[in-house]
Amino acid sequence: MPKHKKKDERSAREPVVTNTVVSGSRPTGDLHLGHLHGALRNWCKFQDAYSSYFFVADWHALTTEYADPSGIQESTQSMVLDWLAVGLDPERSVIFRQSAVSEHAELHLILSMIVPVPLLERVPTYKEQQQQLSGKDLSTYGFLGYPLLQAADILVYKGDRVPVGEDQLPHVELTRAVARKFNNLYGEVFPEPSGEIVRAAKVPGTDGRKMSKSYGNTVNLRDDPETVHNKLARMVTDPARKRLADAGDPALCPAFRLHEIYCTEEEKAELTEACKSASIGCLDCKKVMIKHVLEDLDPIRERRTALEASPGLIDEVLDAGAKKARVAAAETMAEVRKRVGVK
Amino acid sequence: MPKHKKKDERSAREPVVTNTVVSGSRPTGDLHLGHLHGALRNWCKFQDAYSSYFFVADWHALTTEYADPSGIQESTQSMVLDWLAVGLDPERSVIFRQSAVSEHAELHLILSMIVPVPLLERVPTYKEQQQQLSGKDLSTYGFLGYPLLQAADILVYKGDRVPVGEDQLPHVELTRAVARKFNNLYGEVFPEPSGEIVRAAKVPGTDGRKMSKSYGNTVNLRDDPETVHNKLARMVTDPARKRLADAGDPALCPAFRLHEIYCTEEEKAELTEACKSASIGCLDCKKVMIKHVLEDLDPIRERRTALEASPGLIDEVLDAGAKKARVAAAETMAEVRKRVGVK
Repeated sequence: MPKHKKKDERSAREPVVTNTVVSGSRPTGDLHLGHLHGALRNWCKFQDAYSSYFFVADWHALTTEYADPSGIQESTQSMVLDWLAVGLDPERSVIFRQSAVSEHAELHLILSMIVPVPLLERVPTYKEQQQQLSGKDLSTYGFLGYPLLQAADILVYKGDRVPVGEDQLPHVELTRAVARKFNNLYGEVFPEPSGEIVRAAKVPGTDGRKMSKSYGNTVNLRDDPETVHNKLARMVTDPARKRLADAGDPALCPAFRLHEIYCTEEEKAELTEACKSASIGCLDCKKVMIKHVLEDLDPIRERRTALEASPGLIDEVLDAGAKKARVAAAETMAEVRKRVGVK
Repeated sequence: MPKHKKKDERSAREPVVTNTVVSGSRPTGDLHLGHLHGALRNWCKFQDAYSSYFFVADWHALTTEYADPSGIQESTQSMVLDWLAVGLDPERSVIFRQSAVSEHAELHLILSMIVPVPLLERVPTYKEQQQQLSGKDLSTYGFLGYPLLQAADILVYKGDRVPVGEDQLPHVELTRAVARKFNNLYGEVFPEPSGEIVRAAKVPGTDGRKMSKSYGNTVNLRDDPETVHNKLARMVTDPARKRLADAGDPALCPAFRLHEIYCTEEEKAELTEACKSASIGCLDCKKVMIKHVLEDLDPIRERRTALEASPGLIDEVLDAGAKKARVAAAETMAEVRKRVGVK
C-alpha cells in the first residue's frame, strides 16, 4: 500500500502526495442499491490501492438533524453493518466514527480562522439545501461551516483523493482552496486533494426517480429475495409502452438503467431488440435483470447475517478504527499546531 | 471550595449550579497596571471562593493574528509568568492553554449546530472590531464564531460565573442563550452563566487614554522601579493646570485615577485640597502615588525574578493545568455526546 512520503524526502514547496483516500457518509440507516453502486463498490476497490479512511459522518448529521438526533446511533450500526457486508475490510481500511476523533473538530476550528465567510456562502449546496429542507432551521453557524468540516475531515488525514459525485465537486474545490491558503500562510503541510469523480452509476428507484430513502423507492441491501423480486417486478418501465403490443425504448425505461449495471452485453443487446420489437413483456425483461441483482445481493445478505451474529462487533470495529484514525490525525495536528504557532 | 453538585442531587429541570469561574486572556505578552486592576486581582480573589479555570486564549488570538501568529508562544510565556507573579496559584486554580484542551474545539463544533448565524452577527463587537482592525481581513468564519468559542470555553467547564468588563456582557448573554437552547433541546446540562461585572478600575495610561499596549502608554508589571517612576512622573495631569500657581481639579486629572486606586482616603483628601488650592506641584502630588505603586509592584517583580530562575516552569504549570482541565472537560463532553446522541 503506498504510504506518505517521509517529510525529509520532499522540499518545502513540493506538493504533498499521500495516496490517501478519505470519504464519509452520514448515518442513513439501511443502505440500498444507490449506495452500493454510487459509493461502496468504489470504496472497496480503493482500499487495496490507497491508504483508506471511511467514516460515519455523525457530526455532519447534526448539521441538519440537530433538533432530533435520536436516530443517529441506530443508523450508524445498521450502515456500518452494510459496509462490512459489502466488503469494506477493517484490516485494509480505517473505519470509524467522525465524532470519536476530536482532531476533526480541532482542525475545523483552526481552519475557520483563515476561511472567509463569503467562500462558504458561495458553496452551491448551501442555499440549495436551505431551500430544499425548508422545514428545518438551517440558518445555523454549523450548517454554514459544514463544507469546512468536510475539508477538515479530509485534510486531517492529508487525504489527496476524494471520491465524489459530480454534485460534490464544489466541496472538493473548497478543500483545495483551504489547503492552498493554509500552505501559503504556514508552509507546505496539506495536499490539495483531487476529486476522484467516481463512475457513480445513477441508480433509479422503483418509481423512476433517483433511488432515495426519502422517496420510499429503494431496494435495500438487507431486503430478502422475495422483497427484492417484488419491488423490481413492480418497477416502472418505459411509460409510453402501455400494452405488450406497443414497442418500447430501453433508453426511456428506468428499469433498464439497472439492466445496464447488471446484465451482460449480450443480454442487453438481446433485450433491447426484443423491447423495440415488442416481442418481450416488461416483466419477463426485468426477470433477466432481477436474477443478477439477487445473485449480487445474496452474498452481501449472507455476510450481513453472519456479522449480525456477533453483537457488539460494529462498536468494536468502530472503536479500533478510531484508535488508528487518531494516531494519523494526531500526527497531522502536531504538525499543524507547530506551523501555526499554538502548542 | 464549593464543588459541582452531584447529578443525582438535582432534578432534570433544576438550574445547574457549579460555582465555577472561567476566564481567559489572549496572550498579550507583558502585562501592565490595566491588567492588574482590570482582571488579575479579581482572579486571585476568585481562586479561593470558586473552582477556577484561567486559560491562555491562544485559539482566540488566531482569530485576529492568523496571518502572523509568530508571537503567540513568547507572549504566552511572558503573560503566564506575570499571572503567577501576581498571585495566581496553580494549586488553587487550573491554569492552562486553551489549545491544549481539544474539548473546547469539540464543544464549539457541536454548539455551532444549534446557533443561528444572525445571533453571532448581532454581537456588537463583531462589526466594531471589523471596523477598528480594518487593516486585517476579519471576514473569516472563525472571527464570526469567536463569541461562540468563548461560550464553549465557559460551558465546557460548566462555568457559571464569568468575570467580565461591561463591554463583554453581550458575550455572556450569548453564552446564556446558547446554554439555554442546548438545555431545551437535549436536557439540562449547562448552567446559564452570569456575568460577574468586576469592579474593574479603569486604569489610565501615562497619556491619559485607556492603558493599552497598542497606545504605548503602559506601566508594565516587569518595569524596574526607575522606569515606573519615570513613566508616572511624566504622566499627564489636569491639562487646565498649566502653571504651579493655577488651581487644579483632581476630577479632571488622569494621574489622580491612580491616586484613587493606590492612595489612602486621608492622602486623597489632603492632595485634593492641595491641588485645588495650588499649594502642591503635580510632580510632588504624583510622588505620593508613585510610592504606593512601587510598593505594590516590588513583590510582584521579586516573585517574577524568582520564577524566571526556573526555566521550563511555565510549560510545566501549563501542562499540568491542561491535564486537570482535560479531566473536567472530558466529563462534560461525555455528558454532551450522550445527550446529543453521538458517541
